[in-house]
Amino acid sequence: MVKHFLSLASFTQHELSGLIEKAQSFSHQLQKPEKIPSLLQHKIIANVFYEPSTRTRCSFEVAAKRLGAEVINFVPENSSVKKGETVYDTLKTLESLGVESIVFRHSDDHLLDELKSAFHVPFINAGAGKLEHPTQGLLDLLTLYQEFEKLQGLKVAICGDIKHSRVAGSLMVAAKIFGIKIFLCGPESLKPSSQDPLIESADFDSILGEVDAVMMLRIQLERHESLELDAKSYHHQFGMNQRRQKLMQPHAIIMHPGPFNRGIEISDDMVEHPQSRIFKQMHNGVAARMAILDWAINRKDL
Amino acid sequence: MVKHFLSLASFTQHELSGLIEKAQSFSHQLQKPEKIPSLLQHKIIANVFYEPSTRTRCSFEVAAKRLGAEVINFVPENSSVKKGETVYDTLKTLESLGVESIVFRHSDDHLLDELKSAFHVPFINAGAGKLEHPTQGLLDLLTLYQEFEKLQGLKVAICGDIKHSRVAGSLMVAAKIFGIKIFLCGPESLKPSSQDPLIESADFDSILGEVDAVMMLRIQLERHESLELDAKSYHHQFGMNQRRQKLMQPHAIIMHPGPFNRGIEISDDMVEHPQSRIFKQMHNGVAARMAILDWAINRKDL
Amino acid sequence: MVKHFLSLASFTQHELSGLIEKAQSFSHQLQKPEKIPSLLQHKIIANVFYEPSTRTRCSFEVAAKRLGAEVINFVPENSSVKKGETVYDTLKTLESLGVESIVFRHSDDHLLDELKSAFHVPFINAGAGKLEHPTQGLLDLLTLYQEFEKLQGLKVAICGDIKHSRVAGSLMVAAKIFGIKIFLCGPESLKPSSQDPLIESADFDSILGEVDAVMMLRIQLERHESLELDAKSYHHQFGMNQRRQKLMQPHAIIMHPGPFNRGIEISDDMVEHPQSRIFKQMHNGVAARMAILDWAINRKDL
Repeated sequence: MVKHFLSLASFTQHELSGLIEKAQSFSHQLQKPEKIPSLLQHKIIANVFYEPSTRTRCSFEVAAKRLGAEVINFVPENSSVKKGETVYDTLKTLESLGVESIVFRHSDDHLLDELKSAFHVPFINAGAGKLEHPTQGLLDLLTLYQEFEKLQGLKVAICGDIKHSRVAGSLMVAAKIFGIKIFLCGPESLKPSSQDPLIESADFDSILGEVDAVMMLRIQLERHESLELDAKSYHHQFGMNQRRQKLMQPHAIIMHPGPFNRGIEISDDMVEHPQSRIFKQMHNGVAARMAILDWAINRKDL
Repeated sequence: MVKHFLSLASFTQHELSGLIEKAQSFSHQLQKPEKIPSLLQHKIIANVFYEPSTRTRCSFEVAAKRLGAEVINFVPENSSVKKGETVYDTLKTLESLGVESIVFRHSDDHLLDELKSAFHVPFINAGAGKLEHPTQGLLDLLTLYQEFEKLQGLKVAICGDIKHSRVAGSLMVAAKIFGIKIFLCGPESLKPSSQDPLIESADFDSILGEVDAVMMLRIQLERHESLELDAKSYHHQFGMNQRRQKLMQPHAIIMHPGPFNRGIEISDDMVEHPQSRIFKQMHNGVAARMAILDWAINRKDL
Repeated sequence: MVKHFLSLASFTQHELSGLIEKAQSFSHQLQKPEKIPSLLQHKIIANVFYEPSTRTRCSFEVAAKRLGAEVINFVPENSSVKKGETVYDTLKTLESLGVESIVFRHSDDHLLDELKSAFHVPFINAGAGKLEHPTQGLLDLLTLYQEFEKLQGLKVAICGDIKHSRVAGSLMVAAKIFGIKIFLCGPESLKPSSQDPLIESADFDSILGEVDAVMMLRIQLERHESLELDAKSYHHQFGMNQRRQKLMQPHAIIMHPGPFNRGIEISDDMVEHPQSRIFKQMHNGVAARMAILDWAINRKDL
């Protein structure tokens, strides 16, 4: 069976724990990259990003190379897409070229799900529309696990444009699998509705003293004219800053998937605050993606 | 002597047969990429594409990496070309950097021919204007050879904008070398004139029952306003579809160099029809380019 | 201590001589690339170019690969920069991903100097605004050293837009370290002022008979409307051509960092004239960057 990595929802808690353990092990090995076994030698991975990306594309590229794989970057702007080629045909072309995995990002929410059954090459979802970003989900779980040595029972606040965030989407999927309690904060109009008792709406300031982690999300104010908020008042109402950090428990951590807007959803002094794990998350992204690539390509059971 | 790969016309039938055999051998080896000998280890290949390309650029990149070579992608948009550097100077720069081969595509028909004598680094023509695309030619020959175990005496129809197709150009060159009979189909105004008895004009529907292969070409209707054809009537007159496939012999195959316009020169259901070899051609492209890179860089006699 | 390579001014003459010797040794080894020891195996270098570049980016990429390193090309246009990410955050992201060195170019004169203390990953300055281009400086020193087997006491004329040239900037820094005499030629308004006795203004034609090398600089006439010069009169007044080459000593060499404007600052027949070292400089750039990468990443003392 082809091992696509499209959504955390397709894994059991046991399987995800296995991936987290593997990622944690790679995280240690990354201290001495020259000692990492070349588990993906002679493998070629195609990075296919229909949306711009720094950290995710480079993160996959570093992860692949740390395991001895080669990477091909397919940039739609410089390609047959200009000639009107469909995504299916572009992916089928890459499959025909014999690459061992396709890492894929697209603005469409459901494209990979629609296409997957027609392909033998494993797909890795590097961001699908506003719904899912499961490799980010795994690195977030790894970051929480490193901090608290468990996931079940943790309390996490998410603050920002949750409705349109694939990062939040994958975290909420993971929350249900592991029994993490999620509090949805930020503008009411940007909160999704939830029937799940694990996921509930909360006032940001009121909940800060109770949570183990706060996941701040990028907010693009220009997309939300109906909010009638400028950067300053958004930051005042929903941004992470010194005042709010002081409301948090001393052991609680600040997370953000990046890229972040300094001064809007997070103040300058919080980005590298001792309680921030933002750049740790980026480091963990490499380890998480190494685990995912190894699983998808070497067809390992978990 | 520098081993440029610029045109199939510079090879004898014997030499091209050697390249096809080598490509066929690589095609088998690609089933187990980890077993392929690193014939191009420590070699660096520069991909220099002045026109956009998915499949050809990625195909060369996969071919190079399968043989252990490194690849540098030179993208004119992000470079000194913006500062007005000539193509000669850009190529001379890459030669000075010490790359072992330059894979080159440009809209100009004759540029490589004009430049070649000034260079010691082997050039590989990855598409020159509307005249030649010899690596595509080799993969097409490989595809026909795999199917029919011979080339001489085969009958191939080419349909579409033949006059402006470098794919057709290289196939017609190969046809003369191997004694393949070519029938030119499609709009009369897009057929080149031919004095060669091996290459003659034909009515598409009438010839379909006689040929071993049909090479469909991409048609860009917007370029041919004088045709006064829309997509639907073009497809009706010259497109590959179920009606025409039924006119073909059961052993005959459908080819297309890609990227294709679904619903114009080929209907959706024909792209992956059992008689289609379109994605097989893309697979074969890697094998053909491995053979060409090995020949050009390792200076092997054929 | 982190070994950033930001300016030649931070090195002693002894240290720079060590780098030149190392580069010279790599220059010989590049004749047989397959024999070069993989000093940077398992290392990943990030190329981060905020300004377009052919030769410098590709030169670093070849240098890295010749030493067995992997390269990630970060292209700001295709990335989170579009989402407004700061340069600091982009670089911090790449550092978090664990790359072993960041090769960086930006239009800002002082950005790297401002940022460097916050980073543990070694930066290599691949062009900072109009002030410094120290890897070009090293390759120019290597080119002069190969020619004359010494640097001290050499006389070099620089001609063109010296005021806005980072190439000239780094050469003048090096001149002070090694005791090279520099003559500033070209339009008066494009000459920087100098208090240093080693660096003085001169009339181009008058000085040509005295110097060991002439460094021609790219001139962008469209940037200098106040010059009221067209290409033809610029070439007549300040361009390298046959008339001026005949004024030079037979042992003197012509240099240019590229890309060059044929017919403006240099005539066609001078680019590959026997006294020109322009493409030799490009070859030397690979060797110089190999020495710099090895020094920065392997933390070698000089």
